[in-house]
Amino acid sequence: MSVNIPTPVTVGIDFGTLSGRAVVVSVADGTQLADAVHEYRYGVIDTVLPDGTTTLPPDWALQLPQDWRDVLSNAVPRALELAGVTADQVVGIGTDFTACTVLPTTTDGTPLCELPGLAGRPHAYPKLWRHHAAQPQADRINALAAELGEPWLARYGGKISSEWEYAKALQLLEEDPELYAAADRWIEAADWIVWELTGAENRNLCTAGYKGIHQPDLLPAEDGARPGADYLGRLNPGFTGFTAKLDHPLAALGDAAGTLTARAAALTGLNEGTPVSVGNVDAHVTNAAARALDPGHMLAIMGTSTCHILNSDVLAEVPGMCGVVRDGVVPGLWGYEAGQSGVGDIFAWAVRTAAPESYAVEARERGLSLHELLTEKAAAQPVGAHGLVALDWHSGNRSVLVDHHLSGLVLGLTLDTRPEEIYRALLEATAFGTRVIVEAFEEAGVPVTEFTVAGGLPKNHFLMQIYSDVLRRPVNVIGSEQGGALGSAIHAAVAAGAYPDIRTASAAMGRINLAVHTPDEARADAYDLLFAEYRELHDHFGRGGSDALHRLRALRDAARTAGTVPADPTLELEEAR
Amino acid sequence: MSVNIPTPVTVGIDFGTLSGRAVVVSVADGTQLADAVHEYRYGVIDTVLPDGTTTLPPDWALQLPQDWRDVLSNAVPRALELAGVTADQVVGIGTDFTACTVLPTTTDGTPLCELPGLAGRPHAYPKLWRHHAAQPQADRINALAAELGEPWLARYGGKISSEWEYAKALQLLEEDPELYAAADRWIEAADWIVWELTGAENRNLCTAGYKGIHQPDLLPAEDGARPGADYLGRLNPGFTGFTAKLDHPLAALGDAAGTLTARAAALTGLNEGTPVSVGNVDAHVTNAAARALDPGHMLAIMGTSTCHILNSDVLAEVPGMCGVVRDGVVPGLWGYEAGQSGVGDIFAWAVRTAAPESYAVEARERGLSLHELLTEKAAAQPVGAHGLVALDWHSGNRSVLVDHHLSGLVLGLTLDTRPEEIYRALLEATAFGTRVIVEAFEEAGVPVTEFTVAGGLPKNHFLMQIYSDVLRRPVNVIGSEQGGALGSAIHAAVAAGAYPDIRTASAAMGRINLAVHTPDEARADAYDLLFAEYRELHDHFGRGGSDALHRLRALRDAARTAGTVPADPTLELEEAR
Repeated sequence: MSVNIPTPVTVGIDFGTLSGRAVVVSVADGTQLADAVHEYRYGVIDTVLPDGTTTLPPDWALQLPQDWRDVLSNAVPRALELAGVTADQVVGIGTDFTACTVLPTTTDGTPLCELPGLAGRPHAYPKLWRHHAAQPQADRINALAAELGEPWLARYGGKISSEWEYAKALQLLEEDPELYAAADRWIEAADWIVWELTGAENRNLCTAGYKGIHQPDLLPAEDGARPGADYLGRLNPGFTGFTAKLDHPLAALGDAAGTLTARAAALTGLNEGTPVSVGNVDAHVTNAAARALDPGHMLAIMGTSTCHILNSDVLAEVPGMCGVVRDGVVPGLWGYEAGQSGVGDIFAWAVRTAAPESYAVEARERGLSLHELLTEKAAAQPVGAHGLVALDWHSGNRSVLVDHHLSGLVLGLTLDTRPEEIYRALLEATAFGTRVIVEAFEEAGVPVTEFTVAGGLPKNHFLMQIYSDVLRRPVNVIGSEQGGALGSAIHAAVAAGAYPDIRTASAAMGRINLAVHTPDEARADAYDLLFAEYRELHDHFGRGGSDALHRLRALRDAARTAGTVPADPTLELEEAR
Repeated sequence: MSVNIPTPVTVGIDFGTLSGRAVVVSVADGTQLADAVHEYRYGVIDTVLPDGTTTLPPDWALQLPQDWRDVLSNAVPRALELAGVTADQVVGIGTDFTACTVLPTTTDGTPLCELPGLAGRPHAYPKLWRHHAAQPQADRINALAAELGEPWLARYGGKISSEWEYAKALQLLEEDPELYAAADRWIEAADWIVWELTGAENRNLCTAGYKGIHQPDLLPAEDGARPGADYLGRLNPGFTGFTAKLDHPLAALGDAAGTLTARAAALTGLNEGTPVSVGNVDAHVTNAAARALDPGHMLAIMGTSTCHILNSDVLAEVPGMCGVVRDGVVPGLWGYEAGQSGVGDIFAWAVRTAAPESYAVEARERGLSLHELLTEKAAAQPVGAHGLVALDWHSGNRSVLVDHHLSGLVLGLTLDTRPEEIYRALLEATAFGTRVIVEAFEEAGVPVTEFTVAGGLPKNHFLMQIYSDVLRRPVNVIGSEQGGALGSAIHAAVAAGAYPDIRTASAAMGRINLAVHTPDEARADAYDLLFAEYRELHDHFGRGGSDALHRLRALRDAARTAGTVPADPTLELEEAR
């Protein structure tokens, strides 16, 4: 009589911008047994608060914590059921989150937006990574740090992003000081969700380093290894004690943060006491899923935006990188992050803006998405035949310019320019943006020896071929469509003690297909010419040749908020007649 | 017993880019009795010749003479019938044409494309004004003229256009020397149609001056008041004797060129012997229709492109103007021309490129054109709220840069940018382009005291309001929707002897509504800021800051003609798998 030994599994949960996903994965080899997605009810809150009345200024982007809890109570039980596994088989649970998505809470972790009377206060809500309204604060943070020669600035490519913890907190202080005072904790959603699962605050080294200016080899321990009170006070006297809102022992990636509480067990359908791994970022955790942890192996996680994550033995100051953090991806290496703030987002913009009715009809008749139709039409041209070059800054530039008040442009338009040509120019622009980043690393002495892609966009083969041609490199592709969730499941396996460390677990459970796309010499030569044009525009509009994009942004914001100029002169005119 | 005296009328025929129009007008007061349009069968020939097999390179644009004859035989009899007038009432006939639309003919006026065996030769056809493939020749014409200090160059703003007689003829010589030799006459369509009507070659002062470098107060009579043989020979030895193909006595505007032949009378349904006025240009003849003949009164004829025509007592060298010609609009004044090569064309591009399906559906449901819907949505924003600025160079720049190898751009794009915002930015860009031209005149010492609009676009009140705000001037509107044809009818009345001169006839028969649109101070202030951005981009991309637009054009043309780079890497990839 044979004994039926249940397969040990882990659950990985990936909290994205619009939805959360749970996967159930075999601990032995990473085989995915099931996955389930829960779409957020509110998603990105960027025009009006859930109260239905409070409107938001331009560049705001918030989220609702309940949307995240609903992933725990919906996606997790559904994934378990689909996988046909019992709670007893689940040896660990791991999570990853968008970052920097950050929220103010009380000492017990209650989000301020859930306190009575605060539902109408925008600053009480979590600020999503793509909240870009703290740019003025980021500008001052950077100017003062440069003026004072703060040593940490170079760890972030010379600029702190308006997306990160300090800029968003300073905006909170300066626009709603009462809520700033009420925020005992200023915590990454990546850590907040672990608190929600384990019942105790826990903070991870990754977000602390990349988003929270934590640099222990560089900054005094008495300052919490963060910018000192003197610097903070010169930003704003009320900001002097900000570090206290962050202060907490930091846990290494792959460690267990704690175990599931009874309440969280009830929510998820898992057993109380199941180990929960330390919180992590959706991008950074994906390297484990793609077996992209060795020094020099760059992983590009390509979706609405792109994150580039790279481990290295070398510590260097790469201009415009997002950050370099010791142990930031795996213990023992320097983890580098760079990024492009708009990628798939920009392609979606093109589809909703520059795809006429006849294209929509054709796509429908042929059973294609508009992306597929535009890609097919765009692919039918030699390189450069559209005569266009675009800048992929519709959502600003994260690396290497670190400026979210930049905007995009399309150059070379003629009366013959067709929608698919604009679409292709935008695809190419994002590849050029990646090349700028790769070149910045190599010029700074950080070798990039492998290039692998993950996320939703690699399924567009034409896009990937552009990347291979533009970069003149083979492009590897992750072997999982749920890289973040698989990475979290791998981290959960380490936290559960199934593997000694993340790299061993990644080798056993991760997935990669090597050299799926390889460069074509002739196309690469032609793209070099277009890239030279991109580079000239990049430097002209992004590095001081012209400040036109900032002036246009300022005009836009002034016009939108003031709105004093009569809105519709046509109507006036009709009346006057 | 009362005698029924028939009203004397004239017929004006306006030959446009896509159609020709005939109007029947009362000689006494310009009342329009009827009009009739004939759409050309072939229209703009820019991809394949009427033989169905010969394809054309980029930037070519041809027409077919038979399309023009069909206007005489269709539109004219129909207009007469609709007006209920007899041929006996018609005291004169006048015509105007697009320019420079120019063709090679034999000594008897037969277009080369109508000769046996030449239907498959692109250079045998009339080159439409918007044929832009002679830019290399124009560049050499300008470079050599500048090098030799040719005195006539300043009369054309420092640059001869690739659209004009010399550049197009030099292209003919260099690409098809056999046809160049066969072309006894190189003649404007404006004069060819008069030849067709009267049976005798006749050439007008207007096109000779603006398109044919005829400057009698400046250049030696022994050279035909045109560039000398030495200069021509240095462009190309075969070009030395080019002037002979143009040489003919030039007739003053408003004069009778001759009278209708029996053949033309049969074609049109008019009487043999009816006076025919000297040929003219569609733009220049419109000033008579709009009563815009006084010095300082600028008329903007706004359609697919815009022409600016202005008379002045002052002779000045306006940088980048198209030309200044003595007696070029009316005898006794200096006639100035400037232009914008893409205006309505660009708005049409926006509609076919950046208007998604949902907009098309909404427009249909509400019974609006897409132009109307986009205008309505665009008008609902304060100035600058889109954060965009565009350059209106989709079809190159006629004034003040005189460069048809420029291209357009849109700057300031974000993920929030909507189609109507791009549309509005393009409307504004054309207004900014007009402002650059007006300022160029005033800075050169040629006062612009009145601004009047004609053509198809003035019916867009929102667009006109933008022009008024951007220019900070009242905008007058012509009181006729058929400005060209009415102007021709006015010239016909002068040729018939019904009025002593064009200005007297214009005062009696022309139509203008004064100050229909007046500027709003606050909007004008806001537009000043956007105009500063336009001006910076204009000078950066148009005056040497960056040559990116020319490089992109060169890349495009090389890729399109060579096409050596594999067209569809996706397909290759699929095969390789």
